Amino acid sequence: MSKIVDSTPRADQFRMPGEFEKKDGCWLGWPERPDVWRNGGKSAQKVWVEIARAIAKSERVTIAVSHQQYANARAMLPPEVRVVEMSTNDAWFRDMGAMFLVNDETGETRGLDWGFNAWGGLEGGLYFPWDKDDMAAEKMCEIEGLDHYRGPMITEGGGLQCDGQGTLLTTESVILNPNRNPGLSKQQAEQIFYDYMAIDKVLWLPRGCKFDETDGHIDDLACFVAPAEILLSWTDDENDPQYEVYAEAYEILNQATDARGRSLTIHKIHQPNPAVWTAEEASQVDITADATQRLDGYKVMGSYINYYVGNSVVVVPEFDDPYDQPAQQLLGKLFPNREVIGIKNAREILLGGGNIACITQPQYGT
Amino acid sequence: MSKIVDSTPRADQFRMPGEFEKKDGCWLGWPERPDVWRNGGKSAQKVWVEIARAIAKSERVTIAVSHQQYANARAMLPPEVRVVEMSTNDAWFRDMGAMFLVNDETGETRGLDWGFNAWGGLEGGLYFPWDKDDMAAEKMCEIEGLDHYRGPMITEGGGLQCDGQGTLLTTESVILNPNRNPGLSKQQAEQIFYDYMAIDKVLWLPRGCKFDETDGHIDDLACFVAPAEILLSWTDDENDPQYEVYAEAYEILNQATDARGRSLTIHKIHQPNPAVWTAEEASQVDITADATQRLDGYKVMGSYINYYVGNSVVVVPEFDDPYDQPAQQLLGKLFPNREVIGIKNAREILLGGGNIACITQPQYGT
Repeated sequence: MSKIVDSTPRADQFRMPGEFEKKDGCWLGWPERPDVWRNGGKSAQKVWVEIARAIAKSERVTIAVSHQQYANARAMLPPEVRVVEMSTNDAWFRDMGAMFLVNDETGETRGLDWGFNAWGGLEGGLYFPWDKDDMAAEKMCEIEGLDHYRGPMITEGGGLQCDGQGTLLTTESVILNPNRNPGLSKQQAEQIFYDYMAIDKVLWLPRGCKFDETDGHIDDLACFVAPAEILLSWTDDENDPQYEVYAEAYEILNQATDARGRSLTIHKIHQPNPAVWTAEEASQVDITADATQRLDGYKVMGSYINYYVGNSVVVVPEFDDPYDQPAQQLLGKLFPNREVIGIKNAREILLGGGNIACITQPQYGT
Repeated sequence: MSKIVDSTPRADQFRMPGEFEKKDGCWLGWPERPDVWRNGGKSAQKVWVEIARAIAKSERVTIAVSHQQYANARAMLPPEVRVVEMSTNDAWFRDMGAMFLVNDETGETRGLDWGFNAWGGLEGGLYFPWDKDDMAAEKMCEIEGLDHYRGPMITEGGGLQCDGQGTLLTTESVILNPNRNPGLSKQQAEQIFYDYMAIDKVLWLPRGCKFDETDGHIDDLACFVAPAEILLSWTDDENDPQYEVYAEAYEILNQATDARGRSLTIHKIHQPNPAVWTAEEASQVDITADATQRLDGYKVMGSYINYYVGNSVVVVPEFDDPYDQPAQQLLGKLFPNREVIGIKNAREILLGGGNIACITQPQYGT
């Protein structure tokens, strides 16, 4: 019921929306593998429930979960959340799930299924294998009955930030990394974005944040809050290891123009304090040959950029950090018509290597 | 997204439709377990594809399949068929899937999830375990976003034939079998059918066909083709082992009246010739401790009653049998506005213990 479309989205008048545009739903997975999530997933699952509950206030939410965890997820989640069975290797639906494109003329939504190799495959990928994750996009489209395209490269939604008007913000360290698409040139990548996301101009940043295990996804560093309007993670502390990354991004974006020739307004949002795995946390994770092992003192990259913006809510991580409230106040100003909902204990997601944006896939449509 | 409703369908004005009523879709599983289906499921899968293709001419079709077989099923099935992942123990969706009830006032559809124990549990059930099958109904309702009831007994759709107007046709050998609901009385069963399917009158037959491994499901013996109109499997050969079953059913139905007080018109459809497993077929099935072992000479019960009637098609098994064409001609007369489609090699389903009705679950609705 979901046909694979052989043409390109551009040719069929489909485009990738901006994250602030109208959504028909949101997809998440479920944290359960005990070599990634501490306490057999039980700690992260509670946070997932709060995120699903918050987003369900705004649009319909679907949780994709293994058969083994199906009854448990169904029992933990509120009834308004849909639970569907899906086998996966882990739960990063922003990166492994279908992206959704819209046709403004017809109102139709279609899926876009990129290749996925767990952020680098055998050269720095975070777990092995990733075969089930790579099938998630197709399964999502089948359930929804949406036709879909197959994007001709390996990439992840978390590395791609769109304004919905032809501009893409991304990082070279991800897109041009030989562990995704060896030999792919910038021009070839731009052609693919042109054809498959209707992108007219790519704003390239050289890299993402340090300690970001994805090789530097844009979704910890910067995002569009509206066309020509950027939110950038920030610190004024020149000794902070992220400072040079933030400053470099600011410099580039401050001089850039978007696909429509507009200069960009840049809002800075102060980063949370640095986080590391504790010895106790590390002891609560299974050691296997299949997943990156995170030990006592392992640094993880927290960011308020890594939020989810729904039709009526903005769901943002909290880290029990003095910068939590200022971040939410700023998001409240930037999204005055949406309720800002902080998610306590978002550290549980951070320990797995990402945050709220990384685990949510917006389904655009009316 | 699919709430469990604590009241009863009767109280909420829902009723079980007749099989000839309007459908919104049809659900099937996928044959794959090598201890039930010969050649690792490959022979039966081809027949499944033809059935899905035939029904998809009439209404939307969803195939529920394990992750392991997902890509294979997707590749074999035509694009108009939806494929969703679902872990099951086997593929008998009529019996393990949700039944669907309708509310004629509101147009709403809701699911009905009975308990399932593989036709008898540890006392004559056909495989072990059946835990995944028992979750299929809930998963179907979740995918569709339909609220559902939990029926307070163990039973199977293949044992229940409705006229959609308050009459249920069923067999005592199934419903009152202590291997389903020990101690359940006829009166208690009738109360459950009253509450959960809006049944005002139950027409009890003592038993189903011989060699039917379900303890005698009605769906090999007799069905409603319209209110007050019955189709009955038949032979005039008094030496045939089924003769006494058919004659007994005829006797009872010929004297019965339905919930509205009408006498029943009975059409006889000649049964196919008896079938047994060959030695070659038996050699193509894995032997395990978990499934009933079917050996050379094992008798299976073929029936033309075991068809699927869709909005615009009647999909009926063929057995390479001289009675195939007369059966289809009769069905063409009984359903003059529907295309009768014969499915060759339906023997592949028969070897697993059922036929087209057994593997299809109609989803009623507009």
